[in-house]
Order: sequence, then structure tokens, then C-alpha cells
Amino acid sequence: MANLSKGVVHTVFFWLKEKDNEAHQQALHEGLLELSKIDLIKNAYIGRPANTNRPVIDSSYSFSLTFVFENAADQDAYQVHPDHYVFIDKCSALWEKVLVYDAEG
Amino acid sequence: MANLSKGVVHTVFFWLKEKDNEAHQQALHEGLLELSKIDLIKNAYIGRPANTNRPVIDSSYSFSLTFVFENAADQDAYQVHPDHYVFIDKCSALWEKVLVYDAEG
Repeated sequence: MANLSKGVVHTVFFWLKEKDNEAHQQALHEGLLELSKIDLIKNAYIGRPANTNRPVIDSSYSFSLTFVFENAADQDAYQVHPDHYVFIDKCSALWEKVLVYDAEG
Repeated sequence: MANLSKGVVHTVFFWLKEKDNEAHQQALHEGLLELSKIDLIKNAYIGRPANTNRPVIDSSYSFSLTFVFENAADQDAYQVHPDHYVFIDKCSALWEKVLVYDAEG
């Protein structure tokens, strides 16, 4: 199992209010890039729906983030990190829905 | 952005038909551990819902996987890898629902 890593995987999907608004896309993307700099995050991925298409795939969201934390305490500390609040203040008006999955392994 | 990585993030959530059946939980977990050995996967995480609880968090699933691929071609090759079919043959009777998100960044 050379590939398998441990940690808390925090995955968030964002649906923009105006999904085709390029300025809103760019603003959220820039916000996510800033957010990913928080040093509690061990590995960060920011994405948009890939070009895959099967009935079980949800590709309706605008952006996603996958942040891996060493442990639950780091994820908890991230939630209340000042830069996390800056992101929410700056960007939350852009989205109509977020969906979060926290998985621990 | 020291933390930010590129790649295709393939995230799958599994809902067991019998979510409290420990033998089924173990069988799916073992299947996922085997699956994560496929060498096209750059980084693999297998998880269960963490102990977090906010209205935006979905923690109704039984298991999740997050597999990071170098690029879309590797993810495509993984989909048709013989060991992926072995996993599906062995474990698909256990779940009632899967939900997949493929994000590219």
C-alpha cells in the first residue's frame, strides 16, 4: 500500500450563484488559492469538474477543494483560522450552496 | 502556495445497503485497501465520516476514497484497470449508492 496516506480529508464543493459569470469564477478561484496557503493544511488541491461523464458522477459544482490535514485537531484549528474567515467574508456572497465531506482514515 | 498540488482528484462516497453490518463494513474496507494499491494512483486516502457536525456536512456515507492522479489519462486508465474490476465484482453488492466527483486542478 505504497500509495495510501492517513489523515483527515476535508472536501468542499461550491456552487456559484452565477455559474457562468467569469468574474465570479475568478474571484472564487483566487480566494481558494489564498485559502490553500494556510499552513495547517498538509496537502491542498483546488479543482473544477473534470471532463468525465458517467451517471454516478456529479459535475454540477463550480469549484472544489480537497484539503488534507494531519489530524482532526488541525482541521478544527483551520476552521477558526483568521484567513479562513477572510475567505468566507470575501467569497461567501458568490456561492449559493456548499457541500462538505470530512473523512478520517 | 507551498501546499497546493496539481492533479485529478477522484473522490467517491459509498453508502452501504446495511450500514451497521460490521462484516460488510470490513469487506468494503478491505476491498478499498486493495484498490488503493493500483500503481496509477499518486496519492490515496480511504476514510470514514469524521466526527464533525455542521449543517453543510454530509456524513451519511459509510466509506470514502480520495485518489489523486497525475493527469486525466491516468484516471482513465485506472477506470479500466483489471484490479478495479476485481474490486467492483467483489464489493458492488454491498453498496446501495455511490457518488463520484472528479476534479481537475
